[in-house]
Amino acid sequence: MQIGMVGLGKMGGKMAERLRRGGHDVVGYDRDPAVSDVSSLKELMERLQEPRAVWVMVPSGPPTHATIEELGNLMSPGDILVDGGNSHYVDDQKHGAALGAKQIGFVDCGVSGGVWGLENGYALMVGGSTENVERLMPVFDTLKPEKDGFVHAGEIGAGHFAKMVHNGIEYGMMQAFAEGWELLEASDVVTDVPGAFKSWRTGTVIRSWLLDLLVRALDEDPALEELEGYAQDSGEGRWTVQAAVDHAVPLPVITAALYARFASRQDDSPAMKVVAALRNQFGGHAVTSKEGSVAKGADSPGADVVPPVEAQK
Amino acid sequence: MQIGMVGLGKMGGKMAERLRRGGHDVVGYDRDPAVSDVSSLKELMERLQEPRAVWVMVPSGPPTHATIEELGNLMSPGDILVDGGNSHYVDDQKHGAALGAKQIGFVDCGVSGGVWGLENGYALMVGGSTENVERLMPVFDTLKPEKDGFVHAGEIGAGHFAKMVHNGIEYGMMQAFAEGWELLEASDVVTDVPGAFKSWRTGTVIRSWLLDLLVRALDEDPALEELEGYAQDSGEGRWTVQAAVDHAVPLPVITAALYARFASRQDDSPAMKVVAALRNQFGGHAVTSKEGSVAKGADSPGADVVPPVEAQK
Amino acid sequence: MQIGMVGLGKMGGKMAERLRRGGHDVVGYDRDPAVSDVSSLKELMERLQEPRAVWVMVPSGPPTHATIEELGNLMSPGDILVDGGNSHYVDDQKHGAALGAKQIGFVDCGVSGGVWGLENGYALMVGGSTENVERLMPVFDTLKPEKDGFVHAGEIGAGHFAKMVHNGIEYGMMQAFAEGWELLEASDVVTDVPGAFKSWRTGTVIRSWLLDLLVRALDEDPALEELEGYAQDSGEGRWTVQAAVDHAVPLPVITAALYARFASRQDDSPAMKVVAALRNQFGGHAVTSKEGSVAKGADSPGADVVPPVEAQK
Amino acid sequence: MQIGMVGLGKMGGKMAERLRRGGHDVVGYDRDPAVSDVSSLKELMERLQEPRAVWVMVPSGPPTHATIEELGNLMSPGDILVDGGNSHYVDDQKHGAALGAKQIGFVDCGVSGGVWGLENGYALMVGGSTENVERLMPVFDTLKPEKDGFVHAGEIGAGHFAKMVHNGIEYGMMQAFAEGWELLEASDVVTDVPGAFKSWRTGTVIRSWLLDLLVRALDEDPALEELEGYAQDSGEGRWTVQAAVDHAVPLPVITAALYARFASRQDDSPAMKVVAALRNQFGGHAVTSKEGSVAKGADSPGADVVPPVEAQK
Repeated sequence: MQIGMVGLGKMGGKMAERLRRGGHDVVGYDRDPAVSDVSSLKELMERLQEPRAVWVMVPSGPPTHATIEELGNLMSPGDILVDGGNSHYVDDQKHGAALGAKQIGFVDCGVSGGVWGLENGYALMVGGSTENVERLMPVFDTLKPEKDGFVHAGEIGAGHFAKMVHNGIEYGMMQAFAEGWELLEASDVVTDVPGAFKSWRTGTVIRSWLLDLLVRALDEDPALEELEGYAQDSGEGRWTVQAAVDHAVPLPVITAALYARFASRQDDSPAMKVVAALRNQFGGHAVTSKEGSVAKGADSPGADVVPPVEAQK
Repeated sequence: MQIGMVGLGKMGGKMAERLRRGGHDVVGYDRDPAVSDVSSLKELMERLQEPRAVWVMVPSGPPTHATIEELGNLMSPGDILVDGGNSHYVDDQKHGAALGAKQIGFVDCGVSGGVWGLENGYALMVGGSTENVERLMPVFDTLKPEKDGFVHAGEIGAGHFAKMVHNGIEYGMMQAFAEGWELLEASDVVTDVPGAFKSWRTGTVIRSWLLDLLVRALDEDPALEELEGYAQDSGEGRWTVQAAVDHAVPLPVITAALYARFASRQDDSPAMKVVAALRNQFGGHAVTSKEGSVAKGADSPGADVVPPVEAQK
Repeated sequence: MQIGMVGLGKMGGKMAERLRRGGHDVVGYDRDPAVSDVSSLKELMERLQEPRAVWVMVPSGPPTHATIEELGNLMSPGDILVDGGNSHYVDDQKHGAALGAKQIGFVDCGVSGGVWGLENGYALMVGGSTENVERLMPVFDTLKPEKDGFVHAGEIGAGHFAKMVHNGIEYGMMQAFAEGWELLEASDVVTDVPGAFKSWRTGTVIRSWLLDLLVRALDEDPALEELEGYAQDSGEGRWTVQAAVDHAVPLPVITAALYARFASRQDDSPAMKVVAALRNQFGGHAVTSKEGSVAKGADSPGADVVPPVEAQK
Repeated sequence: MQIGMVGLGKMGGKMAERLRRGGHDVVGYDRDPAVSDVSSLKELMERLQEPRAVWVMVPSGPPTHATIEELGNLMSPGDILVDGGNSHYVDDQKHGAALGAKQIGFVDCGVSGGVWGLENGYALMVGGSTENVERLMPVFDTLKPEKDGFVHAGEIGAGHFAKMVHNGIEYGMMQAFAEGWELLEASDVVTDVPGAFKSWRTGTVIRSWLLDLLVRALDEDPALEELEGYAQDSGEGRWTVQAAVDHAVPLPVITAALYARFASRQDDSPAMKVVAALRNQFGGHAVTSKEGSVAKGADSPGADVVPPVEAQK
């Protein structure tokens, strides 16, 4: 089928290529004229036959908002727009409503797969009406891997919601491996930590693609000496926790994994300054007292030194 | 090589069978005479040629302690004993020291693989001296899977330490999937939750054996309606957390996963009774007061009702 | 000074009374004509001399939004509006901007104190410009307790932000006491749990108003048998966690306290169904297998039963 | 009454002094002859009339074990020994059993109060038989504060168990304040963080002795700039978590507080190196691939780059 692809970067460019290899008629637009088939979104609209289908593959947030708004002004009733970026599912609902008011269809699609997607296919999580999803199935069928890798998860927003949860699970799994590694490294008895991870690739409960990746990383750097213990987080981890709070769903593991990343980026923990300050106060060093200053030793008997604070009298 | 196998239950029996298929001379002992080759540990010792090798495969804790103690009294210097059960690594060190004092070798071996191990091999995590491990390599080579599935992780205790950490990671991964499922189920927009999990089997970061198992469970019972939200924990999860505390290693994810299991077995949370009691006290209902009783509404303005408690005056 | 009070419920009514006792000229409006001095917001505006000061004390969310919007249409440049409800600090910023566009001043004020506030004063956390806060100081001075209990925390939103964080800390402290109680109750050796809490009221690190409340609750019901382990949460706990995620601040304790409340309201943990399902799959009971069905015993050796799932081959 | 005091350091010395002021006949022993009334434990035994009472106030762990063992050999049936140090409740049970076999009574006593205890009294949490506790009541009555500050919590070990839980609660409360401070500091709108804490001392739910201490610390150093975010932990925090695991009691808040201290002492998080390593692997930089190396951008669409790992084929 014919489809417009807006955004021909690392992801969009390869997806356009996979679609072309699959026999689709792809017209691409990118701000970079060197890779673009048309010079503007307006020209893209003119090149596509109605009812049009346009796949938006630009960075999430303001760039996606702006692109969808502009396309909404250019597209016609009966056209359909797919947001394949990493948008928040709440934004999908806003975009869907705005386009729906103009009788333009909207489908959100979470995409996983990266540079290998060109050869192996992209995992797709899709949200939207059955009618709209069915219209786009030729495209989804070409993009997805040979087996599995596609779900029509529900109404508008469901695709990005599912992708968000996928990433939340990913956070928890990564942190589980990370904690296991740290404990093994701290052990006095275990001397072959990379060997333990390597051995787990067969016959165990935790065999997984992440384990394979970790084994590969340990092959390159057995004690991970070249790395700093510092990890960024993407929007999806945060959105998962915020969705959990909105839905009153307890997510202790996924949240702990997110917080571990936050903490890893702090040179010094602000919160721990307060704990240190309170521990200093236990020692009463600032208290004018006949007994004078006493440092608290963690193991001294009766280490909880309780001065009479005025407000408690 | 020749080996004695003590404990011919679900695990030990099949491991003995795999060893026999691999050409080893296995003499088995079990309390159940119907499956036992000998009538006592004493007779087992007589049947084995020195230096003997004996694999103990009995439930961890007191049964393992008793068996190792009895064998220690029957074995000779130069013999070697393997504990293949789920023992605590600290117990390994005690067993190793007690046997070592008698010049009996000791190797601990964490085993994963279950009923499929007979055909596919058992993942083995081994601790002990290089000399002792090498003596047992013919046995390990037969038991382990064709690829990976074996590590000599370090000194005595290292095998069970590594197995313990494997299980700790397993707790964290399981809980990550569990939380993801709960959030998807709570969503208003996602209507095909099993489909989302199924789709993730290809091309995603979280593809894993646990995901495959979960997909199979959802195939059988798409909303898990047949199950209660109740999970036991094994010793290894608890030991992982206790080892973390001993080693001052923060394990927020693995611990949260363990605590989620603890909480799942409570009909009613004792801790939450305290929170409820405190919230009731905010409302001051038990306080004799001219103003009388006031229930706290979560969203009422100024909901923090602060009565004058005597001790605070 | 003269002030209009909108909302004469449990909180607003008593605050109006305290202000009158303090010599202020309070004109009150409430939807309930029985307690209202005027019949409409419009009449309230007519009764107040310009530049007017109006204190809004209605439930947060839509009622507050609607009231502020309506007042914004009735008030004049130079007037000032205080939101004393439990609003979200982000909403304060919206309200402040909308009113500011009309040259109407805005101050947000988090209030703590409940029914005892009439006699003892209300703790006030205030956000807004120095000029606006100073104009209202006569009112704040009358409302606040004799000592402490007032802060001009910063710009618009800072008052409710500070109140929100106060409540977040409250969540953590309550949960800390709750966990301590649960562990004491679980102990085999401690037989006088209420006595322990009572004893802690003097000379310890944890003496606090919450401890006093808990002692009072235990006096009434020593084992908290009359209570269910079930706790609501207010918006402020959730907002605290969401603010933490927005600011990349790790809040493990406050978040755990919030999640414990979420979990307490579930009859059965959805997440734990997944853990149970996975544990069942370990046992392979649903797998057609020559070996048949095997239930996993937590302590059985080799309890990690690993069937060959097709996708892992 | 007459009592022997073993250990005349910061705590024991002042407790002996308070007992003397209360009219008791105290015979003190310390390794430091300058402060000791007798030259040896043997001489101490000779100076005390049977049935003797001896209070041991030495560092927990090996020093306490050794002292109790030595005293056990010197004391007579009918004598009674109090361990007032910070011992683990499990050790109490061992000490109690060993002394009980010799018909020597044993009472464990958790003590809080520090240098101010001399004037204000020590909070005491006591475990042991009613008979033994009653014999020692004259001593407890003199040591404890005027009001509250004493509990006979249960059997042997109950005193230290209660003290341990007290400290666990303390960990949770301190971390709650710490997190609140960090979030306030991270806020754009709150500019007077110390003022907020100070304001909370009256009329709020969180007023407490720890809040008073924090206000004092912020008075001295308003942004805590002089402090590093680094906190030690004492044995009792760890024991609380281990007791929780032993009793299958979920303690998410107290454990998170302990883990935050562990993490604060790491220059770089080992676990986060694994997360960083996995994120690098996503980018596939180590994979020989026609497409070459791709760095993962947190917000790029389709950031989950999934290379085909051999073992997953």
